[in-house]
Amino acid sequence: MAAQQKRSKERLEAILEAALRCFRAEGFHGASISRICAEAGISPGHLYHYFDSKEAIVEAIVQSDRARIRGMLDELATASDLIDAIMQVMLTPSAGQQFKIDGVLSLEIYAEATRNPRVAAILNDFHDHARAAVAGLIKTFQHEGKVDRDAQPEVLAGILISIAEGLMMRETIEPAQRFAEMAPYLQRMLRVILLDATAKK
Amino acid sequence: MAAQQKRSKERLEAILEAALRCFRAEGFHGASISRICAEAGISPGHLYHYFDSKEAIVEAIVQSDRARIRGMLDELATASDLIDAIMQVMLTPSAGQQFKIDGVLSLEIYAEATRNPRVAAILNDFHDHARAAVAGLIKTFQHEGKVDRDAQPEVLAGILISIAEGLMMRETIEPAQRFAEMAPYLQRMLRVILLDATAKK
Repeated sequence: MAAQQKRSKERLEAILEAALRCFRAEGFHGASISRICAEAGISPGHLYHYFDSKEAIVEAIVQSDRARIRGMLDELATASDLIDAIMQVMLTPSAGQQFKIDGVLSLEIYAEATRNPRVAAILNDFHDHARAAVAGLIKTFQHEGKVDRDAQPEVLAGILISIAEGLMMRETIEPAQRFAEMAPYLQRMLRVILLDATAKK
Repeated sequence: MAAQQKRSKERLEAILEAALRCFRAEGFHGASISRICAEAGISPGHLYHYFDSKEAIVEAIVQSDRARIRGMLDELATASDLIDAIMQVMLTPSAGQQFKIDGVLSLEIYAEATRNPRVAAILNDFHDHARAAVAGLIKTFQHEGKVDRDAQPEVLAGILISIAEGLMMRETIEPAQRFAEMAPYLQRMLRVILLDATAKK
């Protein structure tokens, strides 16, 4: 990478880091562009060279999260036990600080999406992407005979994402959630919708 | 009710309404006390007569939501089909505007709770209350033989609330969620954790 490209990439990352700190501290709506510039130690003119608005910064943050989701799904794709692997994705967050921070940001971005159509569009695009990726994985497992072949991958993906988000939301503010005790019930729920074709009414 | 008491109650409600509008428009963190006063058409001195901080306003809003939860649980308590009744509580929101607004506010309050210990305490207190109420209902159903008697009411309540919140969170920003298609899967999930003792591993 040329030195200039490298410098540009570093500056971009510094802006995103600064923006994240500001969003966490003051909320997406409360954090101003000038505050983000001060935090990043650059001038507004400089920032506008990279991003034309706070929404554009959110877009970059959400885009970078796609890589994380992709990595998670790649791990799921090679899992020997699908249910165990999904459980791990859903419940491990409680252990790591990283995800907790993501949880806070998710709340901010969701809250902003309710009043900001541009942010809503970014978020919906991201969710369409995530749901399609999860649905694709479920389809693969169906072909391999590991998931009930009558299940609807898109609908199941929506449910799995909703449950994961609900757990994440609770965990973000209440880290003492009794995830260990919840696990057996979650496992049974996942088994019945993913594996258990005979249990259908 | 004496005329003065009535006037005081009306003013209190006007302040809460004004605060809700401001929180929705600018976020909890972004909305200032002076903005709320302007919206309510009163002086800051007047507002401080009722609330000493934004947190105290949130507390009053959250408290008033307890009545809504209580009403919902009372309906569940008399339901002839428990699963149907829970499904209705979880999925009906998509129909009504009221709940959608609650969803937006929930996101705001959750986001604020991640940086504001006072709001976090208010929210946790509310959740303890809600979880205990749902757990109490599950216990009643267990005594009546309507719910698997080996199930742990507190843990189940936590799961049900997480799922409901996950669905609400999705629904708040993406009203076109495919709830009708999700319903059969949700039903099977609820049945296996609430009713189906024999399905346990």
